[in-house]
Order: sequence, then structure tokens, then C-alpha cells
Amino acid sequence: MKATIERATLLKSLGHVQSVVERRNTIPILSNVLIDASADGTIRLMATDLDLQIVENVQAQVEVAGATTVSAHTLFDIARKLPEGSQVRIEAADGKMLVQAGRARFNLQTLPRDDFPVIAEGPLPTSFELPATALVQIIDKTRFAISTEETRYYLNGIFLHVAEDPAPVLKAAATDGHRLARVTVARPDGAEGMPDIIIPRKCIAELRKLLDEVDGSVHIDLSPSKIRFDLGNAVLTSKLIDGTFPDYSRVIPTGNDKLLKIDPRSFEEGVDRVATIATEKTRAVKMAVEKDKITLSVTSPENGTAAEEVPGDYSSAPIEIGFNARYLLDILGQIEGDSVEVHLADAAAPTLIREGEKATALYVLMPMRV
Amino acid sequence: MKATIERATLLKSLGHVQSVVERRNTIPILSNVLIDASADGTIRLMATDLDLQIVENVQAQVEVAGATTVSAHTLFDIARKLPEGSQVRIEAADGKMLVQAGRARFNLQTLPRDDFPVIAEGPLPTSFELPATALVQIIDKTRFAISTEETRYYLNGIFLHVAEDPAPVLKAAATDGHRLARVTVARPDGAEGMPDIIIPRKCIAELRKLLDEVDGSVHIDLSPSKIRFDLGNAVLTSKLIDGTFPDYSRVIPTGNDKLLKIDPRSFEEGVDRVATIATEKTRAVKMAVEKDKITLSVTSPENGTAAEEVPGDYSSAPIEIGFNARYLLDILGQIEGDSVEVHLADAAAPTLIREGEKATALYVLMPMRV
Repeated sequence: MKATIERATLLKSLGHVQSVVERRNTIPILSNVLIDASADGTIRLMATDLDLQIVENVQAQVEVAGATTVSAHTLFDIARKLPEGSQVRIEAADGKMLVQAGRARFNLQTLPRDDFPVIAEGPLPTSFELPATALVQIIDKTRFAISTEETRYYLNGIFLHVAEDPAPVLKAAATDGHRLARVTVARPDGAEGMPDIIIPRKCIAELRKLLDEVDGSVHIDLSPSKIRFDLGNAVLTSKLIDGTFPDYSRVIPTGNDKLLKIDPRSFEEGVDRVATIATEKTRAVKMAVEKDKITLSVTSPENGTAAEEVPGDYSSAPIEIGFNARYLLDILGQIEGDSVEVHLADAAAPTLIREGEKATALYVLMPMRV
Repeated sequence: MKATIERATLLKSLGHVQSVVERRNTIPILSNVLIDASADGTIRLMATDLDLQIVENVQAQVEVAGATTVSAHTLFDIARKLPEGSQVRIEAADGKMLVQAGRARFNLQTLPRDDFPVIAEGPLPTSFELPATALVQIIDKTRFAISTEETRYYLNGIFLHVAEDPAPVLKAAATDGHRLARVTVARPDGAEGMPDIIIPRKCIAELRKLLDEVDGSVHIDLSPSKIRFDLGNAVLTSKLIDGTFPDYSRVIPTGNDKLLKIDPRSFEEGVDRVATIATEKTRAVKMAVEKDKITLSVTSPENGTAAEEVPGDYSSAPIEIGFNARYLLDILGQIEGDSVEVHLADAAAPTLIREGEKATALYVLMPMRV
């Protein structure tokens, strides 16, 4: 292999690719990026952690086609430090890869390209397109609720499924048992009959980063065990979580008859302020909801007390209820409009939060005893 | 105590004060800030860790004079989250301090002001002024060399002493045994006969932050055991390190006869690039110096090799020498001009680095075997 590539092109692509590579690997080749130069003037960069794989194609002047693998983080750091605007010459020979730019020369250890593991995709029978903006919405409005508990591995991702509601829809949900976030979008053509899938957290994180650079649509192919996102220059392939997502629709309350309408910004700032004195152990904020007035309060045996009144629209019977301040702030942070609906039942029942009946996103929050 | 203070004023001042307060304290009152409101319309804020003390005075409307202490970090976090432009009312009563702004009310636990420890300054017979800019230079050009080894506590600060060189000068030095940094400035009036002192690292760090907001001069008073920096609104008092700084002048080489002159930016970038492949264990970069050419190289058993040639002015006998890349970069980062002098002797001898003969700063770097 012998090729020349612009430093900016190499850097950008390695930036995407190296982020899939784990910092510590027991299998040495998983630290490496596969660099595959074709005679047609493209270089394919590929990285994997065995569960998630990224492939990117970049333009280059290829003199001799060929492939090798080198440390992804090292090559990324080198590209980062090379002078702006420089041309990078790469050349593989004798188990080494020579990297040259300006007055700098690097001779990097390589591992054979044939040892590089590739995720076997198998057939991916379901295919559809989603606008990048829709995918961004789905991710941003649900990912904060993904569980980090490894023992409940089936909650460590975003659950995606289709339903007739009664219109055909695609639903994305995430929960950690304390809160649930769900986004509903129209079912894209081709998604009918799609299997229920759980997309792992790491795939979501890498996909989200790449989406910042995508304008149009993302092509998605999937089977019950794998998913592939084609974002144009980059293709992300991931194994899916092999588990059963709980029937979350049962925890979405339908009979909560006490409706509070409130400005999400005043609500958020008030919760954030009173939570200042909450300690790690006692994260609970109490909401006392009366006629058109909410009193937020926190009591900390260590620090003292805090209270703030926030105006709102409320005309049901007064209620007192407690929430984890962090969880409440996570949800309010996703509300973009100037009003949010909080549907309450009683101090022990799940609470429903949404912008309005027609909002694509819906949140359920379990109360805390206060 | 009962007073009203602008949120911005309170926030800025607490920002300075809380940074002296350690996150974890076995003595509860050390987590607190002393708030002392005088009838003359000022509030004095004070914090300490028993070695370092900061006092700041801010303007306020004081209705009832008095003093109390509350958690510095909590009050700072509250001030941070209060709405911009708000007026903060504080009121101490019954072992609590009430903080009120807009619709938010906090009732914070207090500890009695009489329990708040104050550093006894004793007489501080040496007094002089230094321009804030000179103090910034002294700190920035030496602090990176301060040792973090707790067993060599006498190296955990900046050593300050006066000398006749033959002109009367004030010298600041720091070393960790591997590198030494020294800055020399004209001796300010009043510093004659000053005792040799070692200013601890934490005092240096807090002082440096405060200096960003000082325009004129800093008034310094000191004794063999204490130092006080009066920066206008803030006064910083610190205990000095009770130890003997080694006679560092003996390690400054005077007979290094091989002189390399080089552009510090190309040198720095070259070292940074070849060091990319150095691992934590092998941080050494090799410099092969020949007639007007320096070849920088790193060999890592794990990653491979890197080399870069940098042009320079050199006409003595060729020499090969190794340095810790991090230490070399720390020094080069302090060189502001477009040329740096590297005075070499042999591969095992300390190397002298400076901008030129008249530069206020001078660096000594021990080589590494490569």
C-alpha cells in the first residue's frame, strides 16, 4: 500500500473511527484501525469492538493498493499534531506502516489485515429511511433514560418497535425503571413487520455523534440480531441486545386526572435551585401543588432547607409528591416549548409528563417518598 | 445580621473564596465561609484551610450588622443558580441563615462565627510592592517545575530570595530534581534583608487566579513563617513551607560550551509530534544535534519509531542527548520569543535553556539515558 491523503480528511475520518475503539483491549488488533487503499482512489477506514463496527471511505491518491492495520489512537494523535494543510503519505511494508508529512516520519507497528475481525451482518431484511433530524430527536429525547445497570442488560439501549396506534407508527423507548422516555414517529415505508429490537447504548452514542454531520436521510437495514446505519460516507453496524424489553406500555398511566400546566423554564430553574442543597443521598425535591401555585422544596439534614414558588395552571385537589431532582431536570431539559403538562394521580403513582397531547415525546416518572 | 447584596457581586467574591475551601474537611467549620456584615456597608467574606486564608470585602446594603458562617460551596452554588441581576437578601437568626432572592428561599445551617479559625499573622517586617504583571511572570515561568512529591515537602513551592548578582535582585525558583526554573527581577524597595521563603503550591495557585483581575501593584508583607498578598479587594495570607530549599545555584551549569540556537515553535511542535508514539513508561525523546540540524526521535517497542528534523544554528561537535518530552515541552511552552538557546555539555550533564543572556527566566533540564 502506498497513498497520499490530506491531513484534514484523514483527521476527520479517524476522529469518527477511533472513537469506536476501546482504550483498553485484551485482543491487540481491536486497538487498530484497518486501512484499505483501493486503486480507484479511496481509502476505507474501519474499526470495531466486536459489537460495533464503523466503516468510512475517504478520497486519496492511491499509488499502490493494499491494506494494513495500525493503532487507531496513535494514528489519530499523529494526524492531530501534523501541520494544518499538510499532505500525509502512508506506505505499508515489512510489517510496518510509514507515515510521512513535512519533516516528520513515523514508522508504526502493524498487524496483518487478515486478522482484522469483521462483523458478519447476515441478511438484513427490514430496510427503511429516516430523516437525520428524526433520528436525532429519537435519540436526544430518550437516551438519558437508558439504564446503566449491567445486570438489566435488556434496558441498556433504546427499544425500537412498530405499532398500529391506530395509525402505523415507529416507537422508541428507554427506561431504567425509575423513568421512561418514549418518542413516536410515523412508520417509515419498509418498516412494516419489523422485529422488535434493542439498540445498545454505545451504538446510540456513536450514531449520535455522526448525525451532526448528516443533512439528508439515513438508510437503516436490520434483522432481529443486527442493525446497519448508512450515513453516506460512514456505515455503522451493530449487534443488537439479545433480550426482551419489558412491556413498557403498562407503566404509562392513562387515568391521571390531576393536570398541572407550567412554564418548563421556570419549573426547571426552580427545581435546579432548590436541589442545590440536596445531598447525593437525598436527591428528592418535594412539589406541593395547590390552586395555580407549586411550591418546590428540599430538606437536607446537613445543609438546611430550600423552597421556591412557581406559578402554574392547576385546579384539581391539592397534592404533595416527591421526585428525584436529577430525573425531573433530565426530562424538563428535553421540553422545547413554553408549556409542559404534568399529569398527576397521587403521591405514589407514576406521573406522566409531556408537552401536549400531540407531542411526539412522552415521559413517565416514578415518584419518591418525601 | 441582615443585608442585601447584588447577586453578581456575591457570586464573583464567593468564586474566589470557595476555591480556598477544601472539598473534604474533617473539621466542619473549614467547609464554611465567614460572612461578616458591618454597619458601614461592607460584607467581609473569609475562608481558610488553616494554611491559607482569603479575605474579601464587598459592597452591600447592611441593615443589621453581624456575622455567621455557612457552607462555602453550597452558598456559591446557590449564588450561581440565582437569576442574573437579582438582589440577594441574607439574614442570620437562630443558628440559621436565610438567603432570599426572587421566589427562592434557602434556610442554611450555620456554625458560630467565634469558632471560625483565623491565621495569626504575627509581625510581618518585610514589606514591598510588585507589579501584578511581574508576579504573573514569576509564577507562570516557574510553577510547572514545582515538585508534587510530598516527601520532599521543601520543594512543594516557589522559593523566593534576594541576592546581589551583583545588582540587587529578587529570585524565584522551583525544582522537582529533574528540572529547575528560575526567574530574576530587580529587587523591589523594601525587600532588602528579606528572609529566604518557600511559598506553598496552593497559595501560588489561588494567587495566580486572583492576579487575572488585578491591574496595578500587589502589596506583599512577609516574615520567615507567613506571607500576605494585598491585592486590593482581596487579601491572601499563607503559612510558608517550614524547610530549607536546596542550594539550587550549584545545579545551574556555567561551563556548557555547545550552543544550539533554534526556533522554539518548530522545536516544540517537533518534540510534541515525535512524542506521540512515546508510551507513559518511555517518555524519552532523543535529540541528535549536528551542524545546523537537530533530529528528534522516539523509539517505542510497542508503537514503532518517529523522527523529525528541525533546522537550527549549531557548529560545535555533534552530540546525542535524551530528554523527558513532557519536561522539554513545559519549558518550551514558556519561551515567548522567536529564538531559544540550548546550552549543552554532554549526554549526562544538565542542560541550560534560556531565551538569551538577558532573559529574566532560565531553565535547567536533566537529561535521560536514551
